Amino acid sequence: MQEIAIIGIGQTSVGEHWEQSLRQLAGDAIVAALLDANRGSVDGIFVGNMLSGILNSQESLGTLVADWAGLRNIEAVKVEAACGSGAAALRLAIMAVGSGELDSALALGVEKMTETKGPETTAALAEAADADYETPHGLSFVALNALVMQRYLYEFGWQHTDFAPFSINAHANALNNPYARLHEAITLRDYQRARMVAEPINLLDASPIGDGAAAVLIVPADQIRKNGRGRPLVTIAGAAAATDTLAIHDRRDVIWLAAAEISAQRAYAQAGVKPRDIDIFEVHDAFSIMSALSLEASGFCERGQAPRLGLDGDILPGGRIPICTKGGLKARGHPVGATGIYQIVEVVQQLRGEAGDTQVPDARLGMAQNIGGSGATIITHILRVK
Amino acid sequence: MQEIAIIGIGQTSVGEHWEQSLRQLAGDAIVAALLDANRGSVDGIFVGNMLSGILNSQESLGTLVADWAGLRNIEAVKVEAACGSGAAALRLAIMAVGSGELDSALALGVEKMTETKGPETTAALAEAADADYETPHGLSFVALNALVMQRYLYEFGWQHTDFAPFSINAHANALNNPYARLHEAITLRDYQRARMVAEPINLLDASPIGDGAAAVLIVPADQIRKNGRGRPLVTIAGAAAATDTLAIHDRRDVIWLAAAEISAQRAYAQAGVKPRDIDIFEVHDAFSIMSALSLEASGFCERGQAPRLGLDGDILPGGRIPICTKGGLKARGHPVGATGIYQIVEVVQQLRGEAGDTQVPDARLGMAQNIGGSGATIITHILRVK
Repeated sequence: MQEIAIIGIGQTSVGEHWEQSLRQLAGDAIVAALLDANRGSVDGIFVGNMLSGILNSQESLGTLVADWAGLRNIEAVKVEAACGSGAAALRLAIMAVGSGELDSALALGVEKMTETKGPETTAALAEAADADYETPHGLSFVALNALVMQRYLYEFGWQHTDFAPFSINAHANALNNPYARLHEAITLRDYQRARMVAEPINLLDASPIGDGAAAVLIVPADQIRKNGRGRPLVTIAGAAAATDTLAIHDRRDVIWLAAAEISAQRAYAQAGVKPRDIDIFEVHDAFSIMSALSLEASGFCERGQAPRLGLDGDILPGGRIPICTKGGLKARGHPVGATGIYQIVEVVQQLRGEAGDTQVPDARLGMAQNIGGSGATIITHILRVK
Repeated sequence: MQEIAIIGIGQTSVGEHWEQSLRQLAGDAIVAALLDANRGSVDGIFVGNMLSGILNSQESLGTLVADWAGLRNIEAVKVEAACGSGAAALRLAIMAVGSGELDSALALGVEKMTETKGPETTAALAEAADADYETPHGLSFVALNALVMQRYLYEFGWQHTDFAPFSINAHANALNNPYARLHEAITLRDYQRARMVAEPINLLDASPIGDGAAAVLIVPADQIRKNGRGRPLVTIAGAAAATDTLAIHDRRDVIWLAAAEISAQRAYAQAGVKPRDIDIFEVHDAFSIMSALSLEASGFCERGQAPRLGLDGDILPGGRIPICTKGGLKARGHPVGATGIYQIVEVVQQLRGEAGDTQVPDARLGMAQNIGGSGATIITHILRVK
């Protein structure tokens, strides 16, 4: 497959956008990405979204977005992989350009969650779980993750408070991100005193939902090299997706993300790198336990040892493996189908050297991992700047 | 892009499958396609589906289906383009294999519509239209198509009864298809006396919904040529997708399917053929008016003249351009997200010479056109057998 470059990025802030509809959020991110790339059009658009049918009474979302953005008649489709929808859309856009079927493509993630025409948002989010064997028992998504975290604490002997650094780091980094939902530093004491949601997950373990959209524009890398631009050229070094059982109870090991391991190993092989070569890692910290499981399955530490990375400061912007450098899901916010593209936008910002106060020095290789369901669908992308 | 072959097809019957869940229908079609290809596994699965989130309270559908089918850890994603979801899934599967990212892929279409955990099915289907500018006025999907048909009758001077041959042909052909929902021949008198749904669309202009699943397995054609099989080799000669405005009132011309014209012309160019070379055409006859508009925009007759093709018998299995050879949406049934794959399965049956009583003699080139929304997303595939 030919090498792909990301030449444009765009995002809206994450928040409660009462004044903006689903299509308006999407349009704003698309226009921003096209402007960033200095382009007026694109051949196709791949829209990552989970909940438009349920919460916004709107399907045909790919076509609606293309239409609204004035990109009439282009190819367009919506892609759904629960909270992994964003990265899934990028993965398909890469295949579209990589196959030569399209000369350029936009991967967009968009979600509008803070008002609903349908069921309550927590009920809608539970559709990422198994509708026959999990949700009928009354398990919400946070409850499923609480069971996983409980098991992890029991198995490896950590205390809940040992997870605090993940949330503290995310909140601190978001202060530097104007697009983040939460701009509020938190302390260890805040974390320890936060209201319980589903034991052991408290409010500061969990990411907030939100409305938002983010977009990236991709083209064959050769096209850009020929035209020679001044800006650092960010390319896709690795891209892979894998799945696990949808229901957690079907897994041999509920505290190991097999799909993260498989997709990360494939992406490393494509890029010809090892975990130690990765300069930043945007993890899918929907809950703090997911940060730990992602770091372990992706090979950044031994099984059961991820909290140590937090306690030792390894995950800070100046640390060994900086994560959530713009706030992560925890503080940038988690507009579910858009999150995977926000992660990619943030990695590109780092690799271009445009990450502001949380810039990781000399970042050359960045990784993003987007998770749908409780580890059910995991997509890993590795980006490189030369 | 490398040439792609369809080496396996599978389908369930279309009907009210009260005894089978969404995942069971999907699994049955997948197993049938794998058995037909004599394979035990596949690298990835692309699931076309519109309504699982709304009607079945289930997202993460790609992963659920892979998990249920025992294809653990493979890449999987759901694709939504309203009633065009099935062909959209095939289009992406083709890109996945064509780019070399996957060595084999299943394109699955699945829908379970006859029981709902959410809103009434007609309300759910309206999500294919514009949720801000069409559906709030109380327009259902059949009402939108009725406006289009009304305008067509006015503009070109046809009578409603002139559309009867489309429905009569579909019902006649379905008698030969054990997977069809309706096995009941209809007469001109039946058509004329059918109950009105939304004037001028009556019950025999409209396709019935249903539960069902269909799947096709694709691989690089070279892989099959090397292994040399006795069966005729069906390849993808052309594949293209285009969009139009989502809302009908935004179009310059409400009785011309611009996205059909664009996608068909691209597919013809890829295949190096003209409309007159096509031996069979599976049209998206969700309503009889859509058969007419598809035939015109795809170049099979002059604008405004499609009813003539029906009246002259050109659309019959022995005619100039046979359509709906296994019953079409009208009589095979329209499980919306699955329909696009049913069409492909039926074209493959024709090209292999396995179409039974409605076999089109010497069929070498077959075309399928799948439509999402009221002409909003249109995907055209051309298949060839050598």
